[in-house]
Amino acid sequence: MRHLPILQWASEYDATTAARDAVAALIVTIMLIPQSLAYAMLAGLPPQAGLYASIVPILLYSVFGTSRTLAVGPVAVVSLMTAAAVGEVTRTIDVGYATAALTLAGMSGAILVAMGLFRLGFIANFLSHPVISGFISASGILIALSQLKHIFGISAEGHTLFQIVSSMLGDLDAANALTLMIGLPAIVFLFWVRSGLRPMLIGMGLRPTAADFAAKAGPVLAVGVTTALVWVFALDGKGVHIVGAVPQGLPPFTWPNFSLDLVSALALPACLISIIGFVESISVAQTLATKKRHRIAPNQELIGLGAANIGAALTGGFPVTGGFSRSVVNFDAGAETPAAGAFTAIGLAVASLFLTPLIYFLPKATLAATIIVAVLTLVDLRILRHSWRYSKRDFGAVAVTMLLTLGLGVEVGVSAGVILSIALFLFDTSRPHVAEVGRVTGTEHFRNILRHDVQTDPQVLSLRIDQSLYFANARFLEDYIYDRVIDDPQLRHVVLMCSAVNEIDLSALETLEMINIRLKEMGIDLSLSEVKGPVMDRLHRGHFLDHLTGRVFLSQHDAFRALSRI
Amino acid sequence: MRHLPILQWASEYDATTAARDAVAALIVTIMLIPQSLAYAMLAGLPPQAGLYASIVPILLYSVFGTSRTLAVGPVAVVSLMTAAAVGEVTRTIDVGYATAALTLAGMSGAILVAMGLFRLGFIANFLSHPVISGFISASGILIALSQLKHIFGISAEGHTLFQIVSSMLGDLDAANALTLMIGLPAIVFLFWVRSGLRPMLIGMGLRPTAADFAAKAGPVLAVGVTTALVWVFALDGKGVHIVGAVPQGLPPFTWPNFSLDLVSALALPACLISIIGFVESISVAQTLATKKRHRIAPNQELIGLGAANIGAALTGGFPVTGGFSRSVVNFDAGAETPAAGAFTAIGLAVASLFLTPLIYFLPKATLAATIIVAVLTLVDLRILRHSWRYSKRDFGAVAVTMLLTLGLGVEVGVSAGVILSIALFLFDTSRPHVAEVGRVTGTEHFRNILRHDVQTDPQVLSLRIDQSLYFANARFLEDYIYDRVIDDPQLRHVVLMCSAVNEIDLSALETLEMINIRLKEMGIDLSLSEVKGPVMDRLHRGHFLDHLTGRVFLSQHDAFRALSRI
Repeated sequence: MRHLPILQWASEYDATTAARDAVAALIVTIMLIPQSLAYAMLAGLPPQAGLYASIVPILLYSVFGTSRTLAVGPVAVVSLMTAAAVGEVTRTIDVGYATAALTLAGMSGAILVAMGLFRLGFIANFLSHPVISGFISASGILIALSQLKHIFGISAEGHTLFQIVSSMLGDLDAANALTLMIGLPAIVFLFWVRSGLRPMLIGMGLRPTAADFAAKAGPVLAVGVTTALVWVFALDGKGVHIVGAVPQGLPPFTWPNFSLDLVSALALPACLISIIGFVESISVAQTLATKKRHRIAPNQELIGLGAANIGAALTGGFPVTGGFSRSVVNFDAGAETPAAGAFTAIGLAVASLFLTPLIYFLPKATLAATIIVAVLTLVDLRILRHSWRYSKRDFGAVAVTMLLTLGLGVEVGVSAGVILSIALFLFDTSRPHVAEVGRVTGTEHFRNILRHDVQTDPQVLSLRIDQSLYFANARFLEDYIYDRVIDDPQLRHVVLMCSAVNEIDLSALETLEMINIRLKEMGIDLSLSEVKGPVMDRLHRGHFLDHLTGRVFLSQHDAFRALSRI
Repeated sequence: MRHLPILQWASEYDATTAARDAVAALIVTIMLIPQSLAYAMLAGLPPQAGLYASIVPILLYSVFGTSRTLAVGPVAVVSLMTAAAVGEVTRTIDVGYATAALTLAGMSGAILVAMGLFRLGFIANFLSHPVISGFISASGILIALSQLKHIFGISAEGHTLFQIVSSMLGDLDAANALTLMIGLPAIVFLFWVRSGLRPMLIGMGLRPTAADFAAKAGPVLAVGVTTALVWVFALDGKGVHIVGAVPQGLPPFTWPNFSLDLVSALALPACLISIIGFVESISVAQTLATKKRHRIAPNQELIGLGAANIGAALTGGFPVTGGFSRSVVNFDAGAETPAAGAFTAIGLAVASLFLTPLIYFLPKATLAATIIVAVLTLVDLRILRHSWRYSKRDFGAVAVTMLLTLGLGVEVGVSAGVILSIALFLFDTSRPHVAEVGRVTGTEHFRNILRHDVQTDPQVLSLRIDQSLYFANARFLEDYIYDRVIDDPQLRHVVLMCSAVNEIDLSALETLEMINIRLKEMGIDLSLSEVKGPVMDRLHRGHFLDHLTGRVFLSQHDAFRALSRI
């Protein structure tokens, strides 16, 4: 039951809900057809792979996933990561591109399911917001750039800013004017559909829901018009690249290649795609769920996404995850249950059975325009200014993630971002803030002597340690105390105010024992105050308290009253 | 001046100090001769390498180091790590064993100097006490086992428990009885010298200093007696392995091999040896320095040790560091300044010029006995019980470090220990302790409602967050608050008591903004209390405070008085 969320909603399913789900599914299907083809192209795969990756995965997610409105399928960033990983391994390992892509989906699915079963969803929390934000923005820039080649009708390769730009510049002579005359207007039109069409239609008296629907159908219109142009004027004979023959039929059964070479080469990319895909998906799912007071179970979500990816691996697809725009469309169109996803899958299956001959003349430039317009909404450079103002550490994480993603590719970028943000956190905790505190006059409250008007006693040194004590900062504290104490002959008592000490590990305990001994040699006793319950429990298990020269006070106020002559 | 500590003591140097230093140097020299030969053998190098590694490095340390009594040279654990690293690279890369060893010393020296110049000494703090302790104990066991082959006169190879034991068992048929008759008595004798000799001599009326000296000379006696036995009875012709011809002369000038292959293969071992060597050395140096109220400058120590290792690389040596036992002997023998080290270097230079013919017949079993007796004092398994009682996390770090060091070798062991202790710390901080607090009756003090008898108001939920808020725990806090709030319709105010929040990063800030919005939708306002100065400064830089539905209170007492009806 816990692992089959479908049982929770399927029993109450009725005709009204089904009708709402079906309408939502229709709108999503119309939106997904060009998007699926485009993301397959971005991933370096034939267009039908995009349709295949949108059918079985959606069905499996609707059985195992906990979000009622998440729409699963190929998304921009994961497709880019797929292209980078598969492009890399197929250069060194003798394996087909499509096989490598579906193996990647299978591995990613296995990783996600394993993380779900072992309740490891918390690992995704180590991707900080600034790192995600920087990574998504940089990926958006890379994706948009990589698609420009289709707008110009030239060839370009590479997975970094420098590679893409330099290979495009090298081939710029070959640019095709007719292609450009399709691609540029398509970009302008799609931008206008996103921003200007809906208000205009409403201004013309259309009902908002109808205007919404028209705006969503915009890309389909672009596809239809440009396909017709190519067909009518036979532009494919004049250098305009087209999608060409796409096989008609349901998704095929495929089996990943689990050779040791391939699996070890894809291990890191599969992990990164799993985590990035999960983070992207769960944040969409949670945003939508809280609007209707539903709950998302992160570890079950992992299983849902994992099942979807395993489905993609077995049916000629590539890595998938929950997408932002399609999920929002699904939600806004009134989807009530994951059945909407199942209906979408049926719609796409019909499309891949019957509609693929219609896209023979579809120019690749149109698909590229769809991608470019979609991903530029991902690029948000305000995070740079925002993080610069708030915290240099967060700014560092954003900037490094962006620069390395652009300069060295997606895998290096996101890995470096994660490692850097963890390293900066560790560095900060290894040099804790220590405040000398005194009593705020007329209260029982103790604050920093540098920031507040407080009472102190020259015989009593009260230090508030603003960090848990653990191996990385134990020596720092030791040095800090000796430095402070050595030049102050009046001192008789040192009180460590532990209100912010959430843990004392064994290294720190040994250091405290050492501090206690050294202070004793100087004729100074050591006390603690405001030690928290869990920390106190632990101290009782060591011998530290037996040898402590001073006492443990419930509050700093008690300590000051007992030790001070004031 | 800052980088040349020698200038601080050399100007005040006089004859009295020189006399004390000379006496200490004599004792240390006598102790070091067998030890240097033994550690060279442990590192897999010819005996003279041990002498060479003890001459120039000591001189350079006395110029650049900040400890007055640290004795630098080959030590057991670093020699074992050298053997593991060099044994590994010489199997795959075409380079001489001795050249690889001195290249390792050169790289380690460069790393140490760089860390010193860039003030990166804090990196060593990320090696927790339990990890160091587990690593040293496991290394001691590996070293003792690896030397047993010399006691039995058999051959054995490998760098893990399994490899060493299985290869020894496979060759046990070849054991040489005469070798065993030298090795076993040597072990027993050396143990007795360490523990029983000194009290016996004092009991016989000898002055303690003379008894000390005799105890230190014990190993030299073992060397002399067993060498004489081999010579007199020509045991080298009967299967007893001897040291053989050792070239007479001062250390040669050597140049490391900085080929890309070798350098990249030795990069990780060089880093690990640098950090382990530094940690071992600085803890000895600080222990001795505080006894005489001297100061150790950690970053200058890095430069001192780095210079010593570069010296070792240029004079036919191998990685060195400050050793515990020799430094304590130096200190106890009355060394006053690093000049004692310089005198020791002269003594060893004389030995390598004139005394090496005397050790031609020295049996390897005697050297092995010296090592075994020395390293078994490193093995301290009490840390397992101690850490088990105090904290399972620390126990986990010790146990994993020991098991992996024994099972997979020193490099895997110590790396895994460091990674695990950091990962466990991160995991803990990602699931912070959150306590619901109330007012301790009759005070202004707020404590956990589960542990103390406190007053609360059903309209006010006061949560004390026992951790800095950062990316890894932001979502945890969000989930915690929603879970707590959702079933409590009476609530009107949530107060986050931030006395233990030492930082709020951008990810956590965005989460707080989200919590503020969601609580507002439920008709609950959000306040903060006891926000520390540095955190408050930062919050002022974002927009969070502009939208906060509640207030920021100086103390939890103020918050409770303002919000509660009690």
